[in-house]
Amino acid sequence: MRISTLPSPGAASSALLGLLASAELIYALPQPKVPARMQWAHNRGKKIARNALRQSLEGRSYSNVSVACSTSQAASITAPSDNVWAGLTDIEAVSVVSWLFGQSSLNLTATENATEWDNTILLVELQIPNKTDVVAHIDGGGPSPTRYAHVVLDHRSTEEPYYQDLLVGPLPLNDATAGYQPLEYPYTRKTAGKVRNLDADADTLSTEWLYKVGASVADITLDLWNGTGMGLDNDTLDIWGIDPLWQDDGRIIRWDMFWQLPSNFFDAETLMPLGLYFKSDVTGRDPSQWKLEGWLYDNVFYETTEAFRTAYWSGAVPKLAANTEGSWTETDPQDANMPYDSNYPPKTIAPSGSRFGVDYERKYVEWMEFSFYIGFSRDVGVTLYDIKYQGQRILYELGLQEALAHYAGGDPVQSGTSYLDTFYGFGPYAFELIPGYDCPEYATYFNSTFYVDETTHTHLNSICLFEFSADYPIQRHSTSDYVSGTKNTFFSVRSVSTVGNYDYMFTYSFYLDGSITAEVRASGYIQSAYYTTGSDFGFKIQEALSGSMHDHVLNFKADFDILGTANSIQRVKNVPVSRVFPWSNGKARNTMQLERSFVASEDESRFNWAPNIAEQVLVVNKDETNKWGEYRAYRVLPMSGAMHLTVKNSSNLVNAAHWAEYDIQVTRQHDHEPRAAHSYNSQDVHDPPINFDTFFDGESLNQEDLVMWLNLGMHHVPHTGDLPNTVFTTAHAGVQFMPSNYFDIDQSRRTVNAVRINYADGAATAVDTFGQKDATCAVDFTPVEYDLWGYKGDVVVRKFPYDPNNPYYETDSIV
Amino acid sequence: MRISTLPSPGAASSALLGLLASAELIYALPQPKVPARMQWAHNRGKKIARNALRQSLEGRSYSNVSVACSTSQAASITAPSDNVWAGLTDIEAVSVVSWLFGQSSLNLTATENATEWDNTILLVELQIPNKTDVVAHIDGGGPSPTRYAHVVLDHRSTEEPYYQDLLVGPLPLNDATAGYQPLEYPYTRKTAGKVRNLDADADTLSTEWLYKVGASVADITLDLWNGTGMGLDNDTLDIWGIDPLWQDDGRIIRWDMFWQLPSNFFDAETLMPLGLYFKSDVTGRDPSQWKLEGWLYDNVFYETTEAFRTAYWSGAVPKLAANTEGSWTETDPQDANMPYDSNYPPKTIAPSGSRFGVDYERKYVEWMEFSFYIGFSRDVGVTLYDIKYQGQRILYELGLQEALAHYAGGDPVQSGTSYLDTFYGFGPYAFELIPGYDCPEYATYFNSTFYVDETTHTHLNSICLFEFSADYPIQRHSTSDYVSGTKNTFFSVRSVSTVGNYDYMFTYSFYLDGSITAEVRASGYIQSAYYTTGSDFGFKIQEALSGSMHDHVLNFKADFDILGTANSIQRVKNVPVSRVFPWSNGKARNTMQLERSFVASEDESRFNWAPNIAEQVLVVNKDETNKWGEYRAYRVLPMSGAMHLTVKNSSNLVNAAHWAEYDIQVTRQHDHEPRAAHSYNSQDVHDPPINFDTFFDGESLNQEDLVMWLNLGMHHVPHTGDLPNTVFTTAHAGVQFMPSNYFDIDQSRRTVNAVRINYADGAATAVDTFGQKDATCAVDFTPVEYDLWGYKGDVVVRKFPYDPNNPYYETDSIV
Repeated sequence: MRISTLPSPGAASSALLGLLASAELIYALPQPKVPARMQWAHNRGKKIARNALRQSLEGRSYSNVSVACSTSQAASITAPSDNVWAGLTDIEAVSVVSWLFGQSSLNLTATENATEWDNTILLVELQIPNKTDVVAHIDGGGPSPTRYAHVVLDHRSTEEPYYQDLLVGPLPLNDATAGYQPLEYPYTRKTAGKVRNLDADADTLSTEWLYKVGASVADITLDLWNGTGMGLDNDTLDIWGIDPLWQDDGRIIRWDMFWQLPSNFFDAETLMPLGLYFKSDVTGRDPSQWKLEGWLYDNVFYETTEAFRTAYWSGAVPKLAANTEGSWTETDPQDANMPYDSNYPPKTIAPSGSRFGVDYERKYVEWMEFSFYIGFSRDVGVTLYDIKYQGQRILYELGLQEALAHYAGGDPVQSGTSYLDTFYGFGPYAFELIPGYDCPEYATYFNSTFYVDETTHTHLNSICLFEFSADYPIQRHSTSDYVSGTKNTFFSVRSVSTVGNYDYMFTYSFYLDGSITAEVRASGYIQSAYYTTGSDFGFKIQEALSGSMHDHVLNFKADFDILGTANSIQRVKNVPVSRVFPWSNGKARNTMQLERSFVASEDESRFNWAPNIAEQVLVVNKDETNKWGEYRAYRVLPMSGAMHLTVKNSSNLVNAAHWAEYDIQVTRQHDHEPRAAHSYNSQDVHDPPINFDTFFDGESLNQEDLVMWLNLGMHHVPHTGDLPNTVFTTAHAGVQFMPSNYFDIDQSRRTVNAVRINYADGAATAVDTFGQKDATCAVDFTPVEYDLWGYKGDVVVRKFPYDPNNPYYETDSIV
Repeated sequence: MRISTLPSPGAASSALLGLLASAELIYALPQPKVPARMQWAHNRGKKIARNALRQSLEGRSYSNVSVACSTSQAASITAPSDNVWAGLTDIEAVSVVSWLFGQSSLNLTATENATEWDNTILLVELQIPNKTDVVAHIDGGGPSPTRYAHVVLDHRSTEEPYYQDLLVGPLPLNDATAGYQPLEYPYTRKTAGKVRNLDADADTLSTEWLYKVGASVADITLDLWNGTGMGLDNDTLDIWGIDPLWQDDGRIIRWDMFWQLPSNFFDAETLMPLGLYFKSDVTGRDPSQWKLEGWLYDNVFYETTEAFRTAYWSGAVPKLAANTEGSWTETDPQDANMPYDSNYPPKTIAPSGSRFGVDYERKYVEWMEFSFYIGFSRDVGVTLYDIKYQGQRILYELGLQEALAHYAGGDPVQSGTSYLDTFYGFGPYAFELIPGYDCPEYATYFNSTFYVDETTHTHLNSICLFEFSADYPIQRHSTSDYVSGTKNTFFSVRSVSTVGNYDYMFTYSFYLDGSITAEVRASGYIQSAYYTTGSDFGFKIQEALSGSMHDHVLNFKADFDILGTANSIQRVKNVPVSRVFPWSNGKARNTMQLERSFVASEDESRFNWAPNIAEQVLVVNKDETNKWGEYRAYRVLPMSGAMHLTVKNSSNLVNAAHWAEYDIQVTRQHDHEPRAAHSYNSQDVHDPPINFDTFFDGESLNQEDLVMWLNLGMHHVPHTGDLPNTVFTTAHAGVQFMPSNYFDIDQSRRTVNAVRINYADGAATAVDTFGQKDATCAVDFTPVEYDLWGYKGDVVVRKFPYDPNNPYYETDSIV
């Protein structure tokens, strides 16, 4: 889409940077409507000594790893530029929240005092500056882009509740210049940043609807499962259902079902569906107008509760088995008596400590010839920016855009479930990592921070950075005279987001040959289906349970800048041919050859990996050839996993996830098309705030600044091996970016960690280790070596009123 | 194909086992025709102290690894059965060779005395017993299958030279029962095991043809490259060409070309083609009848040498640039000054030493719940047999069948090259591995042995077995109350075969969830093309060099036995559907579902991975369902890489490699169809000894003993990053076998190497490490720690005359 007059916040008022001292600012700003004491009523955490916590927040807690001869963390270096993607400072966030509460026209209420009919602040975070402005700054020496806060307000003091994206700034706030404006330019729908909120009455929905419906059939739930779902403390049943809601014909329809609540901390509820479903019309905000529209049990639909009750108690309805807890729902080791297993398994150590540099403040990393900045946001978690090799940018941006889990089933809840997970957010659930499990103990860990409910939460040690040496070399060759080999050491950045039942592990890795990979793995509990509707949608995996088939599709933005921003996409196909040659005696020979083409425009820029992977997809700059005349390119190729969505024209998604339909999609980069999806696309699937289809409007892709939108995915048809948890080894998808004619020779020749052995007559005649470090050192090996008792969870700091001296621990998960 | 009367050697004469004492046997057998002294004339190795060498042959040389608290090698255990696939004993091989030389009708000559008109023994190794007989033995307690030697004779004392496969036995040899018979039953062509030999006159071809042709244009080669290819000691040029030879119309045609010989040990010759080609008709054995049929230079064909010479010296022909050595042809580190790189990179250690058991004698391995036997053969190297999980067989056999490298190009040599690498063999080139590079230092290494020229060669430490812990867990899950994780430790068996320029790394891995993977990676020097014919077949990667495009396709046999041998192949497809449900108000919903089918017969059993990997391929036993009624299955799924050949009806291969045409091919198991290809298929491509197509003759695949023939491959279009060597990180293909409803729950729950941390209010409240070993130990970390000066190469023992006390070192590579 082309927009000629673009309201770029970065370009707007960069000369007007405010100079208010932060302390002054904070105390000058208005206080919340209610006494501070009351605000803490629901604080589940306990306040603890501020010094220890402050240390945690510094992110240096894992500095005493004892599996190395040297215990050094990553070297401290200074980034060449500021990290313009790093998020708001505490003071910035505080000032924005305070300033917003000062805008009476917004009629805001502090979250913990707000009812469903009050307006609240949902999000305050950095508005990622436009690429145009950033590049002018980091490449061109222009000013640092003016900073704005991206704010999401939840307007609920109205019959038509809506979310609204705002820009607040410029930062630092200054009475003369501070203002807010609807944030609209990055979205394809132009409605002043407003998106309807279908979730506004979440509390009322429980108390006034779901629990009441639950109570209305308590006789049956007690008979079936000896339990109730009525909102009581001793309820053993839970009630929830589809996402997104049905949004057709002007009505908002939900399907909900009963689930068994777990009795212990193992959150296996998604393994215990109970096979009773009901349909509600919950259009509008008045619960008295909501209507029960029917029940489904044993695959029979009843239009009213009375009809269902009559049938049930008539005895004509079978009493279906329940799915209940057992060892199969618990992840602890079971039957664990394998030979040798209680000895230490192999473990990777870092004898020299870390071999990379980090600007801890700016979250900037240098490993070997690579460098990049790390950003973190509420919606998508970690994003990498300005990825360079030897100072030359490869990617401006690489990060998750959205994750879809599209279920299918014979029942309305599974059939109606198509989670768009950034609605929940990957940032809030990027929990603390387990050293020695999620990442090596010797990794360097960063904290990450997100905003919610007038607080900032810090996940301690939630992003890890580490080198690892693969179990195979990157190069080797041998003859009867010599053998050579090169160690395959790579560098990874990792975070794990547990969005409810599922744990998504995101890993970006960098290799000595100059290649980069993006991978996602899935573990955690599957969401399963009650086994009533047969085998069309999954395997039966327990007494009354079906592994509910679903497609994971995760979209990643890869904003390549190959030798500048003027890029093109070349497709190089291997094709069978029958061809006559000057030397073939006039006979045609059956062989193969290459077929080259360019993706001309956005009319042809959505496609899939070729069958048999018989096509290379290359990002080139047509004006930059190597000395042999070939385009210096990065090739994009699939590593593993399936890629795009099976479902065509999904009834659940309508227009909310067109990004999921192809493996590879290329658009011209625009500051107004920064992301493939909006986190509230699920709230209006017919007319979502970002409709990815509209990115494709025929623009030329010839020597333009290009963005590649790549899908990683898994067709998941859970089987018994997904119980209790899916395993990362099989639930895996990845994509690789590989230099192609980009360098003169293989860049892994640049490491000294190689060997050549010449040999003859049964003895080595030369062993060249090329200056590798070769002194012996003693490692104090302590298995389970990091003190796992150090696991803490999230740290929360109150932002309104600002209370920096009283941080407390509180971790909030979806389950 | 069905054969009703099958000459099964195993079933033949198992009651007639000979009882001759081995020593008696050896000395009773005939001696070679020539004095022993002469036989050693070309021995390049030196004889060394037998004790040290004997120790090497025991395969225990790497027992002092110092990167563990415990230095134990794998525990010594006893296999439940003999390894019937393990190869001949020394004594067996000696007896067979001696006995063969005693059969005057064979008219054999010891290899080193043989001319091209003598008959020689090419191969003496174990004839792998028929599955039928083995299963009766290892499962049914029947007798160990009668052992036979598989012998290949090279009959060259004839105008029509041929190879012949023979069976010799039964073993031990016994004057009463010993005999030989043509080996025919495992081949689809029934010609008494005979295959024509197109390579019989290899020496004459060089001396009487290629060098003479080279001499005939020495004026030009000197002018072009200041060198000759004439068979002189100071030649700087080499001459070789296509494989297979053109075999059409009753003629045998070769295309050869000039290459620059490397001046040092870096065997970069395949990077230095010189762009001058000639065609010869070499039909028949009389060099005087061979004909030069033309020259190709600068893409112009000349019918005669004279025509080419005239054109050349007329000055009308351009003097094309040569490809010559440089740093780009050498694998040593270059420009190696990256930050921190001279510190130790991360390294995996085995603090408890090995955690698996090995029957060293029988090459039997037990790791966790897995067990298997290792076989090794000349043609394909390592094969795994009788792979079991908890004593239940998953695969009877898993191993390489053949590897094709199909090139294409604008010149006749690249266009005509389609290496079928088992002609050369993977066994002879499975060289000694580099500890710390090819495998971890702490790995357990096996030797491997192959027969050639009346000797057995032993590759020391050429098969490695090791555990490794991945950089990510196999399972993890977290909530605000707890986090759990399980270490992902796996077990691998690896060998590397360097077939000329290319190093193929084969890795079979076993995972805690019960899954198994087979992977191949490629490194080493590419074979490149002279850059005359433009860009249709590759990228230009040096002054006058094209990265010659080629497809690698490697076929693997996976003989599954899922809960017995009565198996079926189920295909489970994810398909988009529009479907009305009882609860959908009569409206069709766009969603997806599963579509199940079985592969009925060999008429429909050759297929590819579905686009978007939207289909599961399951090996099931229809009579074995789990308690929920689902088939207990292993799923076969692609991990990475391309799979089948691009070229259709290859002019080079004709009928020699039909196995390369699909990703997945399933046949009914037959003792007479043990392998997808014959190592001499290249010698008669129109009518090869094994034509894989003929395996498919419509047999039912419903509850039969099934074999899956799986291809792994890479479309390789080399670019500058392949210089000097291709890197293993990008040249990779793999397939995974994953339990699907096979176990009741995920088997990785059976390891104790897991943790659960419960936490609240910023502190862990419980840390359960489930009995993991948790004592501290000290590791003496010695980087580059294995003494690489211990690299030795191959050990040779003379078998005729048997000379066990004088082993010597000699390693033979193709380059």
